[in-house]
Amino acid sequence: MTVLGDFGHTQDTVKAAVSNGIPPPSFEMPLPDSPEIITANLLKLVGQTPNPRLKFIYQVLVKHIHAFVKETNLSTDEWMAAIEFLTRTGQTCTPLRQEMILLSDVLGVSALVDSLNNPVAGGATENSVLGPFYTDDAEDVDMGESIASEGKGDYMYVEGRILTTEGKPVPNATIETWETDHNGFYDTQYADRSHPDCRGRLHTGEDGSFGYRAVVPCAYPIPGDGPVGELLLSMGRHNMRPNHLHMMVEAPGFHKLVTAFYPDGCDYLRSDAVFGVKKSLVVNMEQVDDDTEARKRGFPRGGSFKLLKHDIILLTEEQSNAIRQQVIGEIEELYTPIKKA
Amino acid sequence: MTVLGDFGHTQDTVKAAVSNGIPPPSFEMPLPDSPEIITANLLKLVGQTPNPRLKFIYQVLVKHIHAFVKETNLSTDEWMAAIEFLTRTGQTCTPLRQEMILLSDVLGVSALVDSLNNPVAGGATENSVLGPFYTDDAEDVDMGESIASEGKGDYMYVEGRILTTEGKPVPNATIETWETDHNGFYDTQYADRSHPDCRGRLHTGEDGSFGYRAVVPCAYPIPGDGPVGELLLSMGRHNMRPNHLHMMVEAPGFHKLVTAFYPDGCDYLRSDAVFGVKKSLVVNMEQVDDDTEARKRGFPRGGSFKLLKHDIILLTEEQSNAIRQQVIGEIEELYTPIKKA
Repeated sequence: MTVLGDFGHTQDTVKAAVSNGIPPPSFEMPLPDSPEIITANLLKLVGQTPNPRLKFIYQVLVKHIHAFVKETNLSTDEWMAAIEFLTRTGQTCTPLRQEMILLSDVLGVSALVDSLNNPVAGGATENSVLGPFYTDDAEDVDMGESIASEGKGDYMYVEGRILTTEGKPVPNATIETWETDHNGFYDTQYADRSHPDCRGRLHTGEDGSFGYRAVVPCAYPIPGDGPVGELLLSMGRHNMRPNHLHMMVEAPGFHKLVTAFYPDGCDYLRSDAVFGVKKSLVVNMEQVDDDTEARKRGFPRGGSFKLLKHDIILLTEEQSNAIRQQVIGEIEELYTPIKKA
Repeated sequence: MTVLGDFGHTQDTVKAAVSNGIPPPSFEMPLPDSPEIITANLLKLVGQTPNPRLKFIYQVLVKHIHAFVKETNLSTDEWMAAIEFLTRTGQTCTPLRQEMILLSDVLGVSALVDSLNNPVAGGATENSVLGPFYTDDAEDVDMGESIASEGKGDYMYVEGRILTTEGKPVPNATIETWETDHNGFYDTQYADRSHPDCRGRLHTGEDGSFGYRAVVPCAYPIPGDGPVGELLLSMGRHNMRPNHLHMMVEAPGFHKLVTAFYPDGCDYLRSDAVFGVKKSLVVNMEQVDDDTEARKRGFPRGGSFKLLKHDIILLTEEQSNAIRQQVIGEIEELYTPIKKA
C-alpha cells in the first residue's frame, strides 16, 4: 500500500483535522477558468492580511512568483524539481549549517538586502556579510600583539584608526577580528581546535588607533556538497570567496559595524560566490621587505610582511537611524517591520 | 563558545574544503558600489549557465527575486524571518508530508502551473490537483457497486460516460476514484485502517458508461499545525478545501486525466485554500427523494440520495501533445525541460 500522506493522524482513534476557524471571505470570487483568475483571486485573498506591512510584502511576493511561473511557462516537471530543491535545502540545515542562507547568498539576495539596509553615507565604512564563522570567544590582544599563532601563514600587520564621519578619533572602541589561515580554514573548521586562533578582540587607544599582527588570509570555497553546491555547478559558477579579513566594531553611541576588507589582487575578488565584496571594502596590502621593520612590529621570524593600513569610519546611532529612515521613507506608513521571532 | 558554522569538518584532521574547480569568469565585473551592480553582476554570472532552458529560468528568477527585495525594501529582520520560514517549511517535510508543496498550493503556484500545463482544449475535462490522498490499493468495484462501506455518509450515486472530444464512447477505461467520508477524512487518515474505503477502481463498459455508489464528500482543512498554517493565519485566510470527488481516468491511446469534481453549494467553493477548483469542474448534485429509485440503485437503507451525473471527456495522446506544443511554442528553442531527478 502506498499512503502518500497521513497528515499526522497516528492515533488509534481519529484525531480531528483542525480548521483555523476563519470564515470564507464575504466578497465573491469568480471560479477560475484561466490562469489570470487564479492570480486575481489570490491577490484578493492576500488583501485580507491584517498587518499592512505584511500585506504589502505578500502582494509584491505573489505578483513576482506568479509572473516568474508565467514568463518561464514552468513545466510540471520543473516545478517539481524546484519543490524538491527547496525541500532539500531546508533539510540540509543543521544547528551548524544554514543552507537556506547560503542559497540567499549565492543568488545575491543577502548582499542586496544588506546593500539596501546599509546604504553608503557620509563616507562611513560600509557593511559586509557577517558570515558563519564568527565566534564570541576571541581572546583579548593588546596593541601590536598577534591574533594568529606562529606558523599560521604569511605575516600581515593591520593598522589604522577608528574615526567619526567628521574625522574625530573614537577612543575605547571594541574591535573583533577574524580570518582564515594559510589553508583557507577558520579555526572552528579544525575538529581539534583547543583555543581560538586567527581571531582576537582589541580596543582602540585615546587617539582611536589600533594595530595588530595577523596572517595574510586565504581564499576558500563555500560548501559544495549540498543543494547550493549543485546549483552553482548547474550555473557553471565557482564556489570560491576571495580572501578577506573580518572586523566588527562597537563603541558607545555609535552604530555597530560588521564589515570585512578584501585585499586587491585576489583571483576571486570580482566573482565572490556570495557577493560580499563592495568597492569601498577593497584594500591594498603594502609589501614591506625590511627585516628591521618586521622585528620592530614583533614578527618573531622577521623578514618581509604585508601592511594593511586602513581607517574605519563609524556612524553615530543618530546618523544611522536617520539614514534608515530615509531608506524606508516612501513606505513609512506601512512600515511595521516584521521582527525575527 | 559559540560556533556558528563548521561546514562539516568533524575529523581529527582537517577535511579539505572543496572547490568545485570552475575558474573565475573571463569577463570583468565591476566591484559593486550600489544594489544595481549586485543584480547586474549576478545576471552576468547566471548568463554562463550551460543549459539554455535553465539559463532562461535562472535569469527570470533572479530578475523577480531581486525586484521583490527592492520593491518591498525588505529589512534585514524580514529577510531573516523569510529564511527561517523556508527552513522550517523544508524541515516540516517527511516521507508522509510535503509542506513545501503545501506552500506552493496556498500561494496558488501549484494551480497556476497546472493551469498553464493543462489548458482547456476541445471541450475536454480539465485537470485538478492530485492531492496527497491517492493510494494505489483501491479495490475493484463492478458497475453499480459501492466504493464506501455502509455508514460512511449520506448516499451519493455517481454516473456518466467517458467520451472522446468527438463524443464517441471510450470503452474499457480505468477509473480510480476517492473521497472523504462524513467526518471529512480520507481512509488513510484513520490509524486503524484495515482496508481501503471511500475509494475504488472501475472500468467503463462498451458504451463508455460508468456508475457507482458513494457518499457525499465533506469539506476538510489542510494541515494547520505547520509553517503554512501560520502563513494562512497571518493572511487571515481559512485552511479549508471545499468538498470534492477525485477521479483519475486512464485508457489506451488517451492522455491520463487527474481531476476532481466540486459539488456546487459548498461554503468553501470560491475560496479553496489550495485553488484547486476550476469553473468547469463544479457540478450539480441532484437531490433524489424516491425510496424505490434509491433501492433500485442498490442503497441498502433506501430513502433519499444525491445523484452526481457528469460525463468525462478525454484527450488522445496526440491531442494532448499538440496542446502542450502550443503552450511551449514561444520558447520552444530554449525548451529542454528540466526533468525530475
